[in-house]
Amino acid sequence: MTTSEPIRFRVLSLNCWGIRYLSKNCKERFVLIGDLLNQEQLDIALLQEVWCEKDFLFLKKKLSSIYPYSHYFKSGFIGSGLAVFSRHQFHDAFLYRYSLFGYPYMAQHGDWFGGKAVGKVLLNINGLKIHVFVTHLHAEYCREKDSYLPHRVVQAWELQQFIRHTSAAADVVILGGDLNMHPDDLGTRLLRNYTGLQDSFSETANFDGCEEGHTHISENPFTNTDNLVPFGGGIRIDYILFKGSGEVDVSCESLSTTKGPVPGHPFPYSDHEALTAEFLFTPTTKGNRCSERQSVNEARTEVKVGLHCAERMRHTAARTGIMGLVLLVLELAIAAVPLFALGAEQPFPKASFYLLGALCFAILLSTLLLYIFYSMEVKALQGTEDQMRLALSKSLVTYSILTVTAVHLVDIKTSSVFENEI
Amino acid sequence: MTTSEPIRFRVLSLNCWGIRYLSKNCKERFVLIGDLLNQEQLDIALLQEVWCEKDFLFLKKKLSSIYPYSHYFKSGFIGSGLAVFSRHQFHDAFLYRYSLFGYPYMAQHGDWFGGKAVGKVLLNINGLKIHVFVTHLHAEYCREKDSYLPHRVVQAWELQQFIRHTSAAADVVILGGDLNMHPDDLGTRLLRNYTGLQDSFSETANFDGCEEGHTHISENPFTNTDNLVPFGGGIRIDYILFKGSGEVDVSCESLSTTKGPVPGHPFPYSDHEALTAEFLFTPTTKGNRCSERQSVNEARTEVKVGLHCAERMRHTAARTGIMGLVLLVLELAIAAVPLFALGAEQPFPKASFYLLGALCFAILLSTLLLYIFYSMEVKALQGTEDQMRLALSKSLVTYSILTVTAVHLVDIKTSSVFENEI
Repeated sequence: MTTSEPIRFRVLSLNCWGIRYLSKNCKERFVLIGDLLNQEQLDIALLQEVWCEKDFLFLKKKLSSIYPYSHYFKSGFIGSGLAVFSRHQFHDAFLYRYSLFGYPYMAQHGDWFGGKAVGKVLLNINGLKIHVFVTHLHAEYCREKDSYLPHRVVQAWELQQFIRHTSAAADVVILGGDLNMHPDDLGTRLLRNYTGLQDSFSETANFDGCEEGHTHISENPFTNTDNLVPFGGGIRIDYILFKGSGEVDVSCESLSTTKGPVPGHPFPYSDHEALTAEFLFTPTTKGNRCSERQSVNEARTEVKVGLHCAERMRHTAARTGIMGLVLLVLELAIAAVPLFALGAEQPFPKASFYLLGALCFAILLSTLLLYIFYSMEVKALQGTEDQMRLALSKSLVTYSILTVTAVHLVDIKTSSVFENEI
Repeated sequence: MTTSEPIRFRVLSLNCWGIRYLSKNCKERFVLIGDLLNQEQLDIALLQEVWCEKDFLFLKKKLSSIYPYSHYFKSGFIGSGLAVFSRHQFHDAFLYRYSLFGYPYMAQHGDWFGGKAVGKVLLNINGLKIHVFVTHLHAEYCREKDSYLPHRVVQAWELQQFIRHTSAAADVVILGGDLNMHPDDLGTRLLRNYTGLQDSFSETANFDGCEEGHTHISENPFTNTDNLVPFGGGIRIDYILFKGSGEVDVSCESLSTTKGPVPGHPFPYSDHEALTAEFLFTPTTKGNRCSERQSVNEARTEVKVGLHCAERMRHTAARTGIMGLVLLVLELAIAAVPLFALGAEQPFPKASFYLLGALCFAILLSTLLLYIFYSMEVKALQGTEDQMRLALSKSLVTYSILTVTAVHLVDIKTSSVFENEI
């Protein structure tokens, strides 16, 4: 670190909802997003759901004079959708793909095809090492019966691991993105407690934007308002989080959100509101660490519930596969009868024979694919659970009280998954 | 860092070849490997290809008195095969799954099902932060026509990224594992040059083991000797690499390999030889960094060649899929004739109709899966190439000479893939 002058640093985060041909006014909105970025004079813009590379290239061209540096993180079948535009040069870029990100057969949700990930770029401004992360976690389609919760908890766990392990040398850490989690949700707490990241919304004295910092509001014409009714018309699921280090004090000077329609246009930038935060980095010598470690027990319970489901699904796939195999063998045995008893008539009409055979093969193939898929899910969940157990065992004494709470929680959620405790 | 006394630290790395029911003498060999570990009194043992969790649990039980701490890294369908046994407590564990690790339909090679990865554990010995990595890269099945080379280069690139980004706060870094690369191979150079890791074989004055440090030798009864003939009967593909920091000097006091059969038994521990290194960690204040950055241009070329292949394969899959679709439509059209021209005879024998229909569906499904798979491969290769370009652009002036070399190399390897240069 070579600077001693305070540095102002402006960050924008926006989920662009850029699904070509499916998202409404997609092309027009990318033009407006480009205008917004040019006009906001940011240091860095963190965009999510830029699903089509053509849209990224369009923005890259449009923004080239103010933001000469950009990076598009590629992953999965479609891409991670993550894009970064910066006034400062990137000194490195790194992508971590989450081990779980939905199911390929839930094509209507599409999360699996994106290959959800967290991207990181390194900036160096006047000698300050600034590590900037951008991510987009798995969507929540139904809060009451959220079958993706274990996947999102695994993602939050891996996100905090990735940030902790890769930012040991950072003077400043900034994370922006659509976490698809409310401020008090398990994953948000896990992430904040384990990394020590602070929430710019609760840390700033100068907020201007939608009520309670909501970024997904019912006034938005692209939003399904039914989902938002229980939450009073809006939720906060997009964040800009930050932390300093022993060397740099970071304060959030202001935070703002866009508020519905773009001035002069009938529609907003996206189905989410954009967040813009202004930070002040002040070099110092005093320490600034936070290492609270609540919520891991609860997270472990969620992961175990997910593990239990995945194991059950794998078992079902295996059983169905075996049934398909038995059916095929039976069919072949019946069809083989005339071969041994010459003269006996073929008991099968040919059409049914081929149809049944094709059905058996289809069952075998699809159950095999499902079996492989669920096995991978089980492995990823077990791996995360092991690492959470390790994190807990390090501080067993400190957390004895928390463990009691967790056991209680497990009793409530599921009594059958709680087999191999520490 | 709180210690000032030098610390001795012993590490073992072994590819265990632990494929139950397929690897010869698998069960007996795990008993012998357990004995070896107990007798060697190591600080940490880094094992690869412990494919079956039961074998890990067997070792865990057998080693529990000397190595109370262990971690098994889970990933992919079968598991990463990586296991760590330690005398010292783990303060954290983290797994990074490589974005490419072979093809699911190459079941005879099996690399895809393992979900290749790099595992990391953190130790703290007398205040020294020791970051230990274990990995197993994609196997090389044919050196002359190595279709997995782009995958292995992507893995080597991601490995160096992971080590660099996660070990900024480390006093000592150690990497052990089966890299499936010779000492002068592109991936090995990439890894060493970018991380500054040193090779214990070339750095120690005290080596005792197979000729030239070979870990895969033709005398081994489990090895296919034909592959090793061009290399004079042995190759070095297993490594223990290390580096210190500004705070700690690390020297490799000795390195040894096992030499064929276990004393008193007719077979060796595995199809690889085990490596054991003894290090001395001496706290100091002088810097010890190495930041040579050769070989990235060459690596980028390899990645581009792989990208070209993947794009071609994806194109083929798409074309075949369209053919299948056309065939299906044609069949349905012909079959529909009698529906419109009443009285006309069904031109298709029913059996052929169903068989052809099933074939079309099979083609459509398999090409769809292949298309998705190759798209993911293209994304991962493009992502790595982007990051390599970023790494290069940072130091464009320094590397102008290297770039000339790379262009020359590209001309030799492939002239058609070199489109979007920096």
